[in-house]
Amino acid sequence: MTLEYLSQNKAFGGDQFVLSHQSETTGTEMTFSVYVPPHAQGAKLPVLWYLSGLTCTHANVTEKGEYRAACAEHGVIFVAPDTSPRGDDVPDAKDEYDFGKGAGFYVDATQQPWSKHYRMRSYIEEELPALVAANFPADMTRQGITGHSMGGHGALITALRNPDRFRSVSAFAPIVAPAKVPWGEKALSRYLGDDRDAWRAYDAVALIEDGARLDNLLVDQGTADNFLEEQLKTGLLSMACAKAGIPADIRMWEGYDHSYYFISTFLGEHLAWHAERLGK
Amino acid sequence: MTLEYLSQNKAFGGDQFVLSHQSETTGTEMTFSVYVPPHAQGAKLPVLWYLSGLTCTHANVTEKGEYRAACAEHGVIFVAPDTSPRGDDVPDAKDEYDFGKGAGFYVDATQQPWSKHYRMRSYIEEELPALVAANFPADMTRQGITGHSMGGHGALITALRNPDRFRSVSAFAPIVAPAKVPWGEKALSRYLGDDRDAWRAYDAVALIEDGARLDNLLVDQGTADNFLEEQLKTGLLSMACAKAGIPADIRMWEGYDHSYYFISTFLGEHLAWHAERLGK
Repeated sequence: MTLEYLSQNKAFGGDQFVLSHQSETTGTEMTFSVYVPPHAQGAKLPVLWYLSGLTCTHANVTEKGEYRAACAEHGVIFVAPDTSPRGDDVPDAKDEYDFGKGAGFYVDATQQPWSKHYRMRSYIEEELPALVAANFPADMTRQGITGHSMGGHGALITALRNPDRFRSVSAFAPIVAPAKVPWGEKALSRYLGDDRDAWRAYDAVALIEDGARLDNLLVDQGTADNFLEEQLKTGLLSMACAKAGIPADIRMWEGYDHSYYFISTFLGEHLAWHAERLGK
Repeated sequence: MTLEYLSQNKAFGGDQFVLSHQSETTGTEMTFSVYVPPHAQGAKLPVLWYLSGLTCTHANVTEKGEYRAACAEHGVIFVAPDTSPRGDDVPDAKDEYDFGKGAGFYVDATQQPWSKHYRMRSYIEEELPALVAANFPADMTRQGITGHSMGGHGALITALRNPDRFRSVSAFAPIVAPAKVPWGEKALSRYLGDDRDAWRAYDAVALIEDGARLDNLLVDQGTADNFLEEQLKTGLLSMACAKAGIPADIRMWEGYDHSYYFISTFLGEHLAWHAERLGK
């Protein structure tokens, strides 16, 4: 697999890369960003994955996330994938911001016409980690994962399905139970079909109900987030974790909304929290 | 003067505002951003002005500058104006990124057709400070100024012309001698006419040669900045400051370029430096 380096910018003593490659999984060109902090030659560094929300690409968090200072301080590599396949060949839902391009929901679609390209689960779980491991000074035994909104959903389900891979899991304003909210019902029914049992592998609360566990979890959620009541339903995650004995620190922040102003306020704290669990 | 609040987002315990108003100076609607950090009720806070570079609006630094953490830590209000008048009535130079809209160069134009709207000097020196003083908890006896590229030029000339207003002055990759470089020669000849004597009030090195002084100055410049040799010419500022006895800390940073990856790396340090001179 050949990586194309689209840009490289020095920041906080390290390097912010934006890269693309021809993905075998999605059958498209995929773009992602990687920040490599300053480090001793030959050192292997822990990796934090950041999965983005609806309408986003790698660029939103790369430009607005304010994570590089903390990555440099704690010596953590930061990887930000795209949220869906892209390109003229990829089917889309015109005028729908919450489905199709920019809205892959981190699933492997089983339904036509989505199943050919919309394979973000396999892309995030298999192809991209192999690419990162092969091209950056990453210690793949020390991985954490986080994300925002649809990407918070992605972080939760990816961690719940791969308990041995991630030592630390956090999320910002995640969609915690997509099978029970409009964004998720639209996406899962179209990508996976009408059989709701097939949705449970892509629903954090359902995965916990079905026995999946996490060793730790940090969630930040703003009280002024317009999507809290209808789409995010943080309370369902709190209840599921309590019932399952998952030690979850779910913090509600007065006055914060769904934007990167919220994420950037707390992403540095998440970095420190992950770094503590990933080791220096 | 009526301020319209376009957005308000909580961040780092304070509020990031984006606002617009009908400017008497430029005869246009002008947009700017203000970050107000958390503070005790009734407190008056020092103000740091940030002037942006070519092609930018208030939005670039607001989204990519990573200044809010340091503003919150040091208790500093951060104001980011636009770089030119905007609107369909405002004459522009089509297909020229370095002149017209987005390229006001912080001058009061004297030449047709620019002189009606391109009055960024008076806007930044008079109208906008009055607006900020009237609407935010700003202590206008404690102001600092900084900026990037064309905005670094703006910060330097504004401070050199108003020595009693600014207690602290810094810049990122400033255009230090616009009269001697292509960007500046194009802009100053069109805005001000061919008499180069009229340009000296808008050229930091010329202002210093003509007797203007600063009590302090911090400049950061990347060595991998594509514009360094032809447009920025940091060395001319170093020489002018040395000759004039201005205590200037001009730092060259190996491998950093002209982008917000560079600015965001050092803007927190600039905030701390300004805060020290502005008082808590």
